[in-house]
Amino acid sequence: MTRILCRQLAPRVADLPANREMSTRAIRDAVKSGADIVVLPELVTSGYVFTSAEEATSVAIGADDPLFKEWAAEAAKGAAVVVAGFCELGSDDLLYDSAAIVDGSGVLTIYRKTHLWDSEKRFFTAGTEAPPVIDTHAGRIGVLVCYDLEFPEMTRLLALRGADVIVVPANWPLVDHPLGERPPEVIIAMAAARTNRVFIACCDRTGTERGQEWTAGTVLINESGWVVALPAEDGSAMAEFDPTRSRNKKLSAFNDALEDRRPELYGDLSREKIA
Amino acid sequence: MTRILCRQLAPRVADLPANREMSTRAIRDAVKSGADIVVLPELVTSGYVFTSAEEATSVAIGADDPLFKEWAAEAAKGAAVVVAGFCELGSDDLLYDSAAIVDGSGVLTIYRKTHLWDSEKRFFTAGTEAPPVIDTHAGRIGVLVCYDLEFPEMTRLLALRGADVIVVPANWPLVDHPLGERPPEVIIAMAAARTNRVFIACCDRTGTERGQEWTAGTVLINESGWVVALPAEDGSAMAEFDPTRSRNKKLSAFNDALEDRRPELYGDLSREKIA
Repeated sequence: MTRILCRQLAPRVADLPANREMSTRAIRDAVKSGADIVVLPELVTSGYVFTSAEEATSVAIGADDPLFKEWAAEAAKGAAVVVAGFCELGSDDLLYDSAAIVDGSGVLTIYRKTHLWDSEKRFFTAGTEAPPVIDTHAGRIGVLVCYDLEFPEMTRLLALRGADVIVVPANWPLVDHPLGERPPEVIIAMAAARTNRVFIACCDRTGTERGQEWTAGTVLINESGWVVALPAEDGSAMAEFDPTRSRNKKLSAFNDALEDRRPELYGDLSREKIA
Repeated sequence: MTRILCRQLAPRVADLPANREMSTRAIRDAVKSGADIVVLPELVTSGYVFTSAEEATSVAIGADDPLFKEWAAEAAKGAAVVVAGFCELGSDDLLYDSAAIVDGSGVLTIYRKTHLWDSEKRFFTAGTEAPPVIDTHAGRIGVLVCYDLEFPEMTRLLALRGADVIVVPANWPLVDHPLGERPPEVIIAMAAARTNRVFIACCDRTGTERGQEWTAGTVLINESGWVVALPAEDGSAMAEFDPTRSRNKKLSAFNDALEDRRPELYGDLSREKIA
């Protein structure tokens, strides 16, 4: 069984030292709780509501930043894998809204968000690489960032490439939804989990930032599409799951969620080989 | 504004005369209520739980069956468009789980379900044509049948091809879901509506058939992904919507649900032109 923990935090905009301390402490706490996979919000190192590109740049870091060594040191204490968002300064001097995947050995890979939301387009450059699936002792981890999740092609791609769990660092701006309904992003995640038979863990943020309210919608969803954990008082949402369950796409004696696709009817996305 | 009405019925298995009368009456009632689009369940002419191919064949009809003239005559009274499931006997002598799209002039087109669920595979042949989008005075109507809906490629394809509304004749076998949650098919439809900015109308069936219980999950969902109507006592779920709203895919000053796709990252499905 894999224990996954999302920690919903409230980063301080443009305050790298404070966010470094908070995120490192959150990883330490999560590893202490026995988490095999730790997920933190999007842009946890930098905050979100920048007023200028200069401000964003002032808290942007490279993939070789010492911060990741701190995270790796905490991950190493429990052989955990950490997925967290950060404001990346690329070697091309461009800014990316990225997720770092870190274990005890250091940075395993960086994913740069490929679908940018709203004024992110003012500060960030969209990534040009498809999202990764990383094979770890805790299962095969697919990574998306926030708005990426709202493209069913992305979740399908990760399922086709063999993800057991899709983790989604997010910053969900609060939007209206009818009383009694879950936030729209959660509904989209539930549908993606069920149609792809994959576990999904979304780590949102909390707090209010320069007047922007957040959904605080952190959620863990099993491969049947049902919510299995929401954040406790301290912002931690934790669940255990068997990663091999996501590898069984059978729906009935005659049905399989991925094999039943009809690629010849809807294009080459679906010709993607099943891992 | 387009008035759409789904009528959740309980067809009698293998009783074509009874189902003909019930379905024709349901269309008459709907047209009297001012419906521009009338949706009836999957296999409304035949029932669903067949015990043999012979039994299914005994209630299979061709696209030239007089039944459709009866439906057309009712549709003509209000210039309505009818979408309803039927058990089709093809000119190739094969059986298809089809939807007829009928207006006052007769059958506009037939769509043969392309994703077959469970023991449907024992009786039916899957269609080989992509689902249609039919341009009508009531808007551009895309058509899926039941399990087709669970493939995000299908809803995306119809949105890309310009559907204002996706109608889904269905027979949803009752499955477990946690207390307080909507049926899983409804959650999938809500996510599809929101991620594609398209109105979705699912017409399920009711009753129990040879021990099979049904979800009775008929639902109308707006282009923001929210439920706007569920069935009343008589099984009718009705709503009005502006079909042109589905043509606006803008999500923010910088975002568009379809233009924001990154086809180069996830394959040719997404290279489908936006209608």
